[in-house]
Amino acid sequence: MDEETLKSLLEAVKSGNCTPDQALSQLKELPFEDLGFARLDHHRALRTGQSEVIFCQGKQPEQIISILKHLGAKSRNVLATRLIPEHADMILHHFPDAQYDPLARCLLLLPLEEPTIPGKILIMTAGTADLPVAREAWITARYMGHDVETIFDVGVAGLHRLLAQRETMDSAEVLIVVAGMEGALASVVGGLVEQPVIAVPTSVGYGAHFQGLAALLSMLNSCASGVGVVNIDNGFGAASLASTIIRRINKNH
Amino acid sequence: MDEETLKSLLEAVKSGNCTPDQALSQLKELPFEDLGFARLDHHRALRTGQSEVIFCQGKQPEQIISILKHLGAKSRNVLATRLIPEHADMILHHFPDAQYDPLARCLLLLPLEEPTIPGKILIMTAGTADLPVAREAWITARYMGHDVETIFDVGVAGLHRLLAQRETMDSAEVLIVVAGMEGALASVVGGLVEQPVIAVPTSVGYGAHFQGLAALLSMLNSCASGVGVVNIDNGFGAASLASTIIRRINKNH
Amino acid sequence: MDEETLKSLLEAVKSGNCTPDQALSQLKELPFEDLGFARLDHHRALRTGQSEVIFCQGKQPEQIISILKHLGAKSRNVLATRLIPEHADMILHHFPDAQYDPLARCLLLLPLEEPTIPGKILIMTAGTADLPVAREAWITARYMGHDVETIFDVGVAGLHRLLAQRETMDSAEVLIVVAGMEGALASVVGGLVEQPVIAVPTSVGYGAHFQGLAALLSMLNSCASGVGVVNIDNGFGAASLASTIIRRINKNH
Amino acid sequence: MDEETLKSLLEAVKSGNCTPDQALSQLKELPFEDLGFARLDHHRALRTGQSEVIFCQGKQPEQIISILKHLGAKSRNVLATRLIPEHADMILHHFPDAQYDPLARCLLLLPLEEPTIPGKILIMTAGTADLPVAREAWITARYMGHDVETIFDVGVAGLHRLLAQRETMDSAEVLIVVAGMEGALASVVGGLVEQPVIAVPTSVGYGAHFQGLAALLSMLNSCASGVGVVNIDNGFGAASLASTIIRRINKNH
Amino acid sequence: MDEETLKSLLEAVKSGNCTPDQALSQLKELPFEDLGFARLDHHRALRTGQSEVIFCQGKQPEQIISILKHLGAKSRNVLATRLIPEHADMILHHFPDAQYDPLARCLLLLPLEEPTIPGKILIMTAGTADLPVAREAWITARYMGHDVETIFDVGVAGLHRLLAQRETMDSAEVLIVVAGMEGALASVVGGLVEQPVIAVPTSVGYGAHFQGLAALLSMLNSCASGVGVVNIDNGFGAASLASTIIRRINKNH
Amino acid sequence: MDEETLKSLLEAVKSGNCTPDQALSQLKELPFEDLGFARLDHHRALRTGQSEVIFCQGKQPEQIISILKHLGAKSRNVLATRLIPEHADMILHHFPDAQYDPLARCLLLLPLEEPTIPGKILIMTAGTADLPVAREAWITARYMGHDVETIFDVGVAGLHRLLAQRETMDSAEVLIVVAGMEGALASVVGGLVEQPVIAVPTSVGYGAHFQGLAALLSMLNSCASGVGVVNIDNGFGAASLASTIIRRINKNH
Amino acid sequence: MDEETLKSLLEAVKSGNCTPDQALSQLKELPFEDLGFARLDHHRALRTGQSEVIFCQGKQPEQIISILKHLGAKSRNVLATRLIPEHADMILHHFPDAQYDPLARCLLLLPLEEPTIPGKILIMTAGTADLPVAREAWITARYMGHDVETIFDVGVAGLHRLLAQRETMDSAEVLIVVAGMEGALASVVGGLVEQPVIAVPTSVGYGAHFQGLAALLSMLNSCASGVGVVNIDNGFGAASLASTIIRRINKNH
Amino acid sequence: MDEETLKSLLEAVKSGNCTPDQALSQLKELPFEDLGFARLDHHRALRTGQSEVIFCQGKQPEQIISILKHLGAKSRNVLATRLIPEHADMILHHFPDAQYDPLARCLLLLPLEEPTIPGKILIMTAGTADLPVAREAWITARYMGHDVETIFDVGVAGLHRLLAQRETMDSAEVLIVVAGMEGALASVVGGLVEQPVIAVPTSVGYGAHFQGLAALLSMLNSCASGVGVVNIDNGFGAASLASTIIRRINKNH
Repeated sequence: MDEETLKSLLEAVKSGNCTPDQALSQLKELPFEDLGFARLDHHRALRTGQSEVIFCQGKQPEQIISILKHLGAKSRNVLATRLIPEHADMILHHFPDAQYDPLARCLLLLPLEEPTIPGKILIMTAGTADLPVAREAWITARYMGHDVETIFDVGVAGLHRLLAQRETMDSAEVLIVVAGMEGALASVVGGLVEQPVIAVPTSVGYGAHFQGLAALLSMLNSCASGVGVVNIDNGFGAASLASTIIRRINKNH
Repeated sequence: MDEETLKSLLEAVKSGNCTPDQALSQLKELPFEDLGFARLDHHRALRTGQSEVIFCQGKQPEQIISILKHLGAKSRNVLATRLIPEHADMILHHFPDAQYDPLARCLLLLPLEEPTIPGKILIMTAGTADLPVAREAWITARYMGHDVETIFDVGVAGLHRLLAQRETMDSAEVLIVVAGMEGALASVVGGLVEQPVIAVPTSVGYGAHFQGLAALLSMLNSCASGVGVVNIDNGFGAASLASTIIRRINKNH
Repeated sequence: MDEETLKSLLEAVKSGNCTPDQALSQLKELPFEDLGFARLDHHRALRTGQSEVIFCQGKQPEQIISILKHLGAKSRNVLATRLIPEHADMILHHFPDAQYDPLARCLLLLPLEEPTIPGKILIMTAGTADLPVAREAWITARYMGHDVETIFDVGVAGLHRLLAQRETMDSAEVLIVVAGMEGALASVVGGLVEQPVIAVPTSVGYGAHFQGLAALLSMLNSCASGVGVVNIDNGFGAASLASTIIRRINKNH
Repeated sequence: MDEETLKSLLEAVKSGNCTPDQALSQLKELPFEDLGFARLDHHRALRTGQSEVIFCQGKQPEQIISILKHLGAKSRNVLATRLIPEHADMILHHFPDAQYDPLARCLLLLPLEEPTIPGKILIMTAGTADLPVAREAWITARYMGHDVETIFDVGVAGLHRLLAQRETMDSAEVLIVVAGMEGALASVVGGLVEQPVIAVPTSVGYGAHFQGLAALLSMLNSCASGVGVVNIDNGFGAASLASTIIRRINKNH
Repeated sequence: MDEETLKSLLEAVKSGNCTPDQALSQLKELPFEDLGFARLDHHRALRTGQSEVIFCQGKQPEQIISILKHLGAKSRNVLATRLIPEHADMILHHFPDAQYDPLARCLLLLPLEEPTIPGKILIMTAGTADLPVAREAWITARYMGHDVETIFDVGVAGLHRLLAQRETMDSAEVLIVVAGMEGALASVVGGLVEQPVIAVPTSVGYGAHFQGLAALLSMLNSCASGVGVVNIDNGFGAASLASTIIRRINKNH
Repeated sequence: MDEETLKSLLEAVKSGNCTPDQALSQLKELPFEDLGFARLDHHRALRTGQSEVIFCQGKQPEQIISILKHLGAKSRNVLATRLIPEHADMILHHFPDAQYDPLARCLLLLPLEEPTIPGKILIMTAGTADLPVAREAWITARYMGHDVETIFDVGVAGLHRLLAQRETMDSAEVLIVVAGMEGALASVVGGLVEQPVIAVPTSVGYGAHFQGLAALLSMLNSCASGVGVVNIDNGFGAASLASTIIRRINKNH
Repeated sequence: MDEETLKSLLEAVKSGNCTPDQALSQLKELPFEDLGFARLDHHRALRTGQSEVIFCQGKQPEQIISILKHLGAKSRNVLATRLIPEHADMILHHFPDAQYDPLARCLLLLPLEEPTIPGKILIMTAGTADLPVAREAWITARYMGHDVETIFDVGVAGLHRLLAQRETMDSAEVLIVVAGMEGALASVVGGLVEQPVIAVPTSVGYGAHFQGLAALLSMLNSCASGVGVVNIDNGFGAASLASTIIRRINKNH
Repeated sequence: MDEETLKSLLEAVKSGNCTPDQALSQLKELPFEDLGFARLDHHRALRTGQSEVIFCQGKQPEQIISILKHLGAKSRNVLATRLIPEHADMILHHFPDAQYDPLARCLLLLPLEEPTIPGKILIMTAGTADLPVAREAWITARYMGHDVETIFDVGVAGLHRLLAQRETMDSAEVLIVVAGMEGALASVVGGLVEQPVIAVPTSVGYGAHFQGLAALLSMLNSCASGVGVVNIDNGFGAASLASTIIRRINKNH
């Protein structure tokens, strides 16, 4: 989509030959930028309502830098996830203002801004070892403009710690439950609240945990209803789904 | 919770000694009825916003009948899922007005009423063989008061069938994607829409499908964001999660 | 071990040439009866403290009848587990006083007697569909002489049903937790009590439950300590372990 | 639970307005200390009868140090498990009196004291490579106040080595069997003794052992009864369960 | 290989133009008979030292009958394995002298003859439920001309039953150990004897046995050396391997 | 696509306003017929070069009949696969001229015609039990217009049977290798020929075959190159891929 | 096959005593060179139509160098795959003209030449992280003489990127689709084109991807026909199969 | 077993009060030496006919040194397997005459002697990458006194390389087939020879090989009979089984 096309489209809107809805519909489908090894999708935000995020696992640092430059030139901020510290160091050399969070393994080109979208996301973890995944979810949700609150270390083996948080749980629009081990927290929370619960199994555990399989199966078989599951350790995916739900809530206001 | 308790609670509300919120909070936690083999939870609707549904798999017909009688005596309608035809026949003998759907393997004590909750749920299937699961989702969502539309047989091998449905997809609040085989429909739909997508893997396939494992793993690894996954063949769970989201949307209006 | 050997051993005890402990030790190792296809171990009770139980799965009805006749001739009662109804009918023809429990798929040659061993076993289930396994555990424990109490249908999705049972839970020596789905009940109970908890995963669930694998992995990864796990659907094994623990408790009195 | 609350509770006990049992019951449910990333549960000992133990896997050294400081300030001793040597070095810098066992990967703030609880735990291993897991169990059991004896390297391929230990086996209240490879030791021991047997599969083996899966399945399918299984390599869990059983035995004296 | 070719080959041997070894070598590679759906290999006995055996699983009864007729016309006896009773009835109609063993699901065209090959095979089972597999091994070994002895129901939970059989174990050339559950018998026997042990895992067990996987993994990870494993429930394969070993022993006399 | 649209398109071609290629391109994307539960894709043949085939597994007989009627009304012949005998009987009642093959579980509305597409497909099986899958491939390939030859029962345990078929193997354009058990035939054939080899694992085997998993993994790991794998028991898929390749060969002539 | 044999064979061709086809047939079966640890197959090109390629995984650098020297002495170029950088450095020391591609982990003794075989292979990837596998396929195909075009980063979450490439897709003879995550690209492409599609699952993904299992199962269960699957990350295998197909196309011209 | 006991036993033999067989029988069961962490079994050679071998995986270097000293003091030579190079260096420091083979990861205290036991073991590998496992088998077999021959790199993709070795294959008593990838070599060899075949799956392969699972399942499902399987990469186990068979052959001479 070159500038000329864009211009004539907008003029058509101005003149009434094209309604804004029609124009929006056209824009959703159109352009992507070809870097050879990657095709950047600048209009994804229009189409699915979410900004572009770079999933760095398996990408080489040069590729990440190139994508960041192209995306950063047109957007205000960019999020890169699954970025290992060695690569982060190389990237920070090119983007000295960027900030890297080693716990979440996430990088942001610009500082996070204050939340602008109404409706709180609550992120809960069963144990301290689930923090990296919860942190990835936190950064993603904040990057997408949401208000986020957290409750850590409320695993079901100490039920009173969880029950003491009823009020905070009731105050959120969507709950993200991050848990490894047997992942029972998702079922217990799902049985306590009336909001949507997004369950994130983590690879925390040993032996017969099989890198998160135990928690994943547990959450898929939750006896509580109203629970949707994302991939093991996928904090980003949980936050994206939460964002999708909350944006839907706001759209209907 | 006997009548007396309820009465004094309500009087306390009336007199101002107890706010409605406090009363609601107490009611959420209180009563269940003990049948010996099952504990009915009449206040689950208050607590999680959903009516009681009987999951019949593994239950004996006598037990189901007993539960139906207790629940039916207090509610307007009751839904029983995963009910095999042999047991349905026995149950219909006791509840001649009930209706059994053999495709969905669901039974309802009373006819479905017209949808009362704003916001449409769209249920899509990749193939004809996914219909039983989609039907379970349809009945559940309608039983919970929702408006439901369906698009069947739009698997990704014939992409134009799917793309012809863009308008219908855009008109829904939540999309439920039911697919067996490689389950790719969830990713393709997730990339096209801005609404939450609930993915239901089905056990449709053979050989290396391993009773739904292929579709399940595929959906958990979806390259599209905004997708939450429920258990294999779990049409009920998908509809419950969709209902949770839509009720949240309406709550904030 | 023929009668003569037994007699001379007992005389040695009487005369003081052999202490009772020495005699017991010899008896533990000695005799078994050879039926050709099975070797009956009449002294297992002496050695491990438990009576002989017939595991019927994979055995043909003629074999079961033959074993019952040999065991029944020497013991007061015999328990047969995993006995399908078709085989039970054939066996009841030979033992008209025996009683068959179709839910537990267990048969007893004689009626159960009143419990004689101090210390209560509490059997809890998450759902109604877990009852067959709980019933197998109940019969086994009662057959072994124990006092058993039950709490059914207290799954974690309705936590208040569970918390209402704290007193009963505190009154038992050992708790057996029977749960399918995500098996979270074991963790929650394990976090509430100070007694040993025996977790029994059941094959109740569908799809990604994989015939009990989900609940099994969940229980093995329980974040609560003091939990031991037995095989899927193994109500007999759970009761045996509970019996072992309680007999140990009584031995030390 | 602040001091005031505690004081008034104790005065109520003193004055007879509250029985000790009632006070104990209240204390069990109450307080936990919030460190932001972790919620310490100082009353877990009252509730489940076990001291707080830090599971270090997935925790960062700074977090472990912070937890140790809070717990250590109120307790006499603290146990940290699954602590890798690199982190142990950092921690020993802050707690110069602590002792780290590199084989078990465990750290103790203070030296172990002499066992105070009657009833011996016997820990057996099939091979020398199972020692790290056995050592974790040993430290945990000793930290919890128990008397522990060990028999190493008595795998079933050399049955006479095992049979020579009958007397030691008979002298214990609970047996912990640690075995990798095919894990057959649990079945053989379970057939020889009348005490509860706790089976710990280890990840020792190669090829089709699949990191402990072979031993785990073997133990879950043990043909001997009276056997409870814990997670792969979970020496801590085995000792906790053993401790739970022995404390129950002593409680009833 | 038509008659003429055979004749000229034999004449070449007679005249000295071809040594017997050369003729044997040629014959090993040559003929098979084409039935359209199956290619009968009449010289397999020459090549690998074993007679043709029909594996019936997945074959239709008409096909089995056709193969039996072709093989039976040239051999003295034929063995058919994995033959379900329904098909056996149809086949016995065509071969009234044949004998069907429903336990082993095997059929023989002619009665078994007395063993002709020196060296005994000992078949042991852990439990009564392992008998069908042991019986398939027994018939196969006897059909191949071997002397077979059996010891049933000597599982490791009752070690003294096994140890009482040392003498019989020492008297065999090869031992076949058939066991389900945790399959520990293979390791224990392997540690007691100096002869080759062939381990056959059976699908006997439930829950986490996963249709024989537990016993299979257990046997592959046996801590005893000198153990070779065959497929789950593969009594035929075990007997074939035993036969191969014993024929090798006799060849070298 | 109604008649009018089609007519004007063709007239545009005639008048030169639209090239045939442009018209073909439009037609490929257009029409499907909506039956409510299924969307028939009459132009799939144009788009991917293959006729519509009905995969019956999971479909109800009424649905199959309805689809057959719609497709049969426009095409010359229709193939239905994975059709169980019970459903076939119901369908044959409506289509008395159709023919059902119980071995392949396939139904054809009209008799097969003589092959019209040059280039032979060779289907090979390792054993007689692989025939049903081979037969499904045979019918599919013949239905698609191809010349097919077969070689059955040439498993690698009798290598000379296979090597005797070199000439037939060399005469085909594409080879389909159907094998269960260890699936080694695909590797051996792949090492002998220069043509593409399509490997079809079958579920034939027992025990550790795990319903075709063993053969599937074996074929995916083939040490021979030039081998493509399809799903377990997927004779239809193998024939479709073979057809795709041969039509490509002919297109370039 | 020494020179003399070769010479007399060729003279027999010249004199007409042997047709070229007969000679070719003999040559296919004959010689390999024995290096002790490896048997080089110089005539594989004649037999299966492909040059020798060294699979370096598991080989020691000295072995690779030795094989390269023997192969390089007789061929024009040699390809080594799965060569880790550490070993590549050692090898480049001996072959200074060779070129190593660290992304593909491939080494070539000589530079690639221009494609000589008509018919284009199109390699497509779903994401940037799939590039290493695509690159291995690219080098292999070019080494085998083929014309290759690539389209990267056209995953199904952004369908318009893919649909914009219809023309390029139609211009190829064979398509190789490389995809990790849920691998849906293979199904979508398979539904769009009439050419053979070779699907390569990659190990790109995390959590429930299980090192490529998710994408592998997805591709094996593709709802599109005309798709053949190779092993996870097996770019070499995909290119070999593509080469086999294209050479077949050209052979028939 | 102290010296006195041994002496009196031998005197009893001398005097005729005890036959040599009786003495042998007693000696088999008796002594083992207790190192605290390991129980050395000096009489295993008498009992199972094999010398003690140290499996080093999971053992610490100090433990290995201690065991080597105790065993080495009484035997002529000792074999240590699965010894990583780092530990080997530490051990060679204490035993300067020992020899370490880095390919096989085996160490021997003394040089290998010439074979003394009649009957040849043939070790075959499918590829060069299988060499480490084959080498472990070779050293083990030679250490146990056997004559060993090898054929490397005869995978089934180049069948003529294998068929050229018929004579060597016929000359062995037992064949060990070492193969990764699809492991088809075991089936092909098993179909060609009449001797026992021991199949060793290796972890060589990638992607869907799952660390040897593909080859393991393939070998367990071999369509050839007379094949016994050992654990993945278990060269030691294969050689031990081969040794057991050959010693049995020689015993009967």
